[in-house]
Amino acid sequence: MLRAMAATDHPPRVHDDWYVLAESSELRARPLARALYDTPIVLFRDARGVAHALLDRCPHRNVPLSLGAVRGPELECAYHGWRFDGGGTCQAVPGLCRAAAHPGRRVPSFATREADGFVWVYGVADEAPARAPYPLPLASDARYVTVRQQLTMPGSVHAVAENALDVPHTAFVHRGLFRGTGEPSTIEVIVERDATSAVAEYVGEARPGGLLGRVLGPGGGVVRHFDRFILPSVAQVEYALGEHTHLVATTLLTPVSDYETRLYGVFAARFPFAAPWVARAVKPLAMRVLRQDVAILGAQTAAVRRFGGERYASTEIDVLGPHIDKLLRRAAAGARDVSPASHRVTMRA
Amino acid sequence: MLRAMAATDHPPRVHDDWYVLAESSELRARPLARALYDTPIVLFRDARGVAHALLDRCPHRNVPLSLGAVRGPELECAYHGWRFDGGGTCQAVPGLCRAAAHPGRRVPSFATREADGFVWVYGVADEAPARAPYPLPLASDARYVTVRQQLTMPGSVHAVAENALDVPHTAFVHRGLFRGTGEPSTIEVIVERDATSAVAEYVGEARPGGLLGRVLGPGGGVVRHFDRFILPSVAQVEYALGEHTHLVATTLLTPVSDYETRLYGVFAARFPFAAPWVARAVKPLAMRVLRQDVAILGAQTAAVRRFGGERYASTEIDVLGPHIDKLLRRAAAGARDVSPASHRVTMRA
Amino acid sequence: MLRAMAATDHPPRVHDDWYVLAESSELRARPLARALYDTPIVLFRDARGVAHALLDRCPHRNVPLSLGAVRGPELECAYHGWRFDGGGTCQAVPGLCRAAAHPGRRVPSFATREADGFVWVYGVADEAPARAPYPLPLASDARYVTVRQQLTMPGSVHAVAENALDVPHTAFVHRGLFRGTGEPSTIEVIVERDATSAVAEYVGEARPGGLLGRVLGPGGGVVRHFDRFILPSVAQVEYALGEHTHLVATTLLTPVSDYETRLYGVFAARFPFAAPWVARAVKPLAMRVLRQDVAILGAQTAAVRRFGGERYASTEIDVLGPHIDKLLRRAAAGARDVSPASHRVTMRA
Repeated sequence: MLRAMAATDHPPRVHDDWYVLAESSELRARPLARALYDTPIVLFRDARGVAHALLDRCPHRNVPLSLGAVRGPELECAYHGWRFDGGGTCQAVPGLCRAAAHPGRRVPSFATREADGFVWVYGVADEAPARAPYPLPLASDARYVTVRQQLTMPGSVHAVAENALDVPHTAFVHRGLFRGTGEPSTIEVIVERDATSAVAEYVGEARPGGLLGRVLGPGGGVVRHFDRFILPSVAQVEYALGEHTHLVATTLLTPVSDYETRLYGVFAARFPFAAPWVARAVKPLAMRVLRQDVAILGAQTAAVRRFGGERYASTEIDVLGPHIDKLLRRAAAGARDVSPASHRVTMRA
Repeated sequence: MLRAMAATDHPPRVHDDWYVLAESSELRARPLARALYDTPIVLFRDARGVAHALLDRCPHRNVPLSLGAVRGPELECAYHGWRFDGGGTCQAVPGLCRAAAHPGRRVPSFATREADGFVWVYGVADEAPARAPYPLPLASDARYVTVRQQLTMPGSVHAVAENALDVPHTAFVHRGLFRGTGEPSTIEVIVERDATSAVAEYVGEARPGGLLGRVLGPGGGVVRHFDRFILPSVAQVEYALGEHTHLVATTLLTPVSDYETRLYGVFAARFPFAAPWVARAVKPLAMRVLRQDVAILGAQTAAVRRFGGERYASTEIDVLGPHIDKLLRRAAAGARDVSPASHRVTMRA
Repeated sequence: MLRAMAATDHPPRVHDDWYVLAESSELRARPLARALYDTPIVLFRDARGVAHALLDRCPHRNVPLSLGAVRGPELECAYHGWRFDGGGTCQAVPGLCRAAAHPGRRVPSFATREADGFVWVYGVADEAPARAPYPLPLASDARYVTVRQQLTMPGSVHAVAENALDVPHTAFVHRGLFRGTGEPSTIEVIVERDATSAVAEYVGEARPGGLLGRVLGPGGGVVRHFDRFILPSVAQVEYALGEHTHLVATTLLTPVSDYETRLYGVFAARFPFAAPWVARAVKPLAMRVLRQDVAILGAQTAAVRRFGGERYASTEIDVLGPHIDKLLRRAAAGARDVSPASHRVTMRA
């Protein structure tokens, strides 16, 4: 299998879905300036604790509302004090003797929900969401240790998601950490795609080699490994080693712009032993892996921009990348009708 | 009253009028590099003391003439020594055995006048001015203390002029300095517009509150307050408190580029007492006000550029902004035929 | 003679010819990232010592190949380890169980030759060169001292080549170093142009004045002086003073982008005496001259870009500039058919 993705001016943009714009704990008294596909969005939490998202531009003189302050149920602009409620309606124009509310003074507002410790925002303003945010697995399972991490990655959602789910690069970019230390063996990958997701299951994989493998899977045993992409931007790696070790690394990706992606990572793990020291041991290794990925994604993204767009050649061992591309392109075109597909690939890893 | 200004690629550009490009005291032996709507212009003062303005590009190899030197009546290019007189005619090509003057070697030149301590330049090259520069009031009245100040402001001429003349923002951007400390009262504003200017007169306004008010108007009394915009770019605030206190703050705005405006400010004041200590007391307050305006204009301008143009909603208490916009747009289209208008507005301030 | 070069979006680009992308001594075990007219090119030297040039983008995920490593005869990508030979064929895809070579995985490759201590690359990928690289004169003549120098100059190939060959600017940009110290005399210049080059011969020129002249030509005598431009980008100054002093300064110009040119200079000199101290004496003067030229070219180039293109007026003492322009424009249009021309010019210098 070889396919070249079409070079385009910009990566596919999926607007009609939910993205994480902040962790719930970040959104406090002060409004937060965020962006989604380069559209500035202000988040604020009203006096009752409810989170809201508005276009980050005052309709009066275009000053960002994120420079303002929360006043009870409303967000006040820093320039002339116009106040807007969570629905974007103008509720006060200081100095004006008439009523403030007027259709021409509305700010576009985005549906907002808090779930699993994140503030989710629907990417189309003034529109009822067509679906629900992704329900984070294991978020409230007390048997699991959970670690969260945020990071800005250079690259499109496709580039960052594929990087998170790609096996072959680990032997080069992360040489000595995951793979690349022993002789490669042949493993089989079952790839399944439906209208909104793609999953790769690795069959007969050996316990990961390298230092990280020895730390994470000290007991050896049968490995079950799934890599998943779920629209619009969830990349998930699940490992089970034997019966008692279970790791699920979920990255929720937010396209700040076409080529800059904010990664909200949740790492949930269950071990056959007390876990605190594992978290401490894994953290520096995980950060090293992330830094290596940031570096290679930065180089990739700079080249993509310089050449005017992504122009990829893939082989059959790029097991998820082309599926992610197809799902994103169809969703960007407003359709979630990609036909189911299933195939098996042999890979040396 | 609500109106949305049309979003455009760029703010209106009024070329056929006079702009200040320097204070007279700045233009000495060395040429000065300036810009008007992004067009580079070189100012030089010839050996007889006369100021000239040329396009800042040598016709020979395009080096900026502002890198050169004044030689008697001419400006000499730094690259090959070509010399140009104030009218832009090439008077010398070193090394050339023939005559230097030639139509293809002319530099476009701009009408230049010095008045009231400023070097004024007409914005269309090689054209006889259609009008005269704005005559600065009180510039030579010995009863007035005069202070001058230059500053680059982010924002279009419209944004900077409106900011200079706008009352409602003072309670938010300059909270505690002008207004916003006491209970607001209702005041009446009479707005008059003719073909080239717009004036707002505030009727029955109380002595300004806050610290600045106490410094400027210690005696109280009847307040007369006018805010004026005069084409192409004069913003003027006039206050009279009683019979003996009179303040006129005139800002002459020069569009360096669409979204960067050089402000040449002249503050003329007459007090019922000796004024030197007032100037010393007011200066730090004035600078604080300017810094606050620079900050909010910077945020506004960044958002305007990010969204691709100004898209404003106005209310009736934006008493001058929409008139300034109308005057500028008509003038940018080459017409100064805006019909006279007059209306009254009630405002709480 | 006066002519205005047409203003265009960009300077003429001559792709179908050879350019120096590195000195041979620079290309060692690590690949080098270079650019030609903004196209990224990676140079690498394989295990047998042969230099190669490929488009600096992996066809797989677009990471620059210059971040990779040389493995025997191949260049390995840093992301997934794909390997390419000097012809651009993919020879390995780690993990893939099938053959790696496939037309869709090729990298465009550029003809590469090493000669006279330089790595030359032909500017059109996957094409047999239409001609040979410029043979550097005196490169292997033991009677000559040779000094090499690299420098990035702001400016197009035209601007940098003309600057290197232009006489009149020396009295202004390099005042006191070359000329401008004594009374100018009238000299005659014979200009000859053929389909691929233009030469100016200076007849009856006095020994150069200034400090540099006294160092270079202590004995005086008859001066012979030629300035040459040879397509695509060779600028050469040749001086002979009497029978025993002979200087040839050749600059090989590489358009990194439209307005940034890498200069590879070779200065070859023969003197009637031992030369080492001359090289030491000349070096700081030469560097001072180059810094002055970098400064003036930088100012010129910034103005050219700001105004949207070169728009030049020339006189007859711009003896080579218009010819260089004509040669470059015809070559950029794919033709090397400029008709021969010859004329004489009188210049005061």
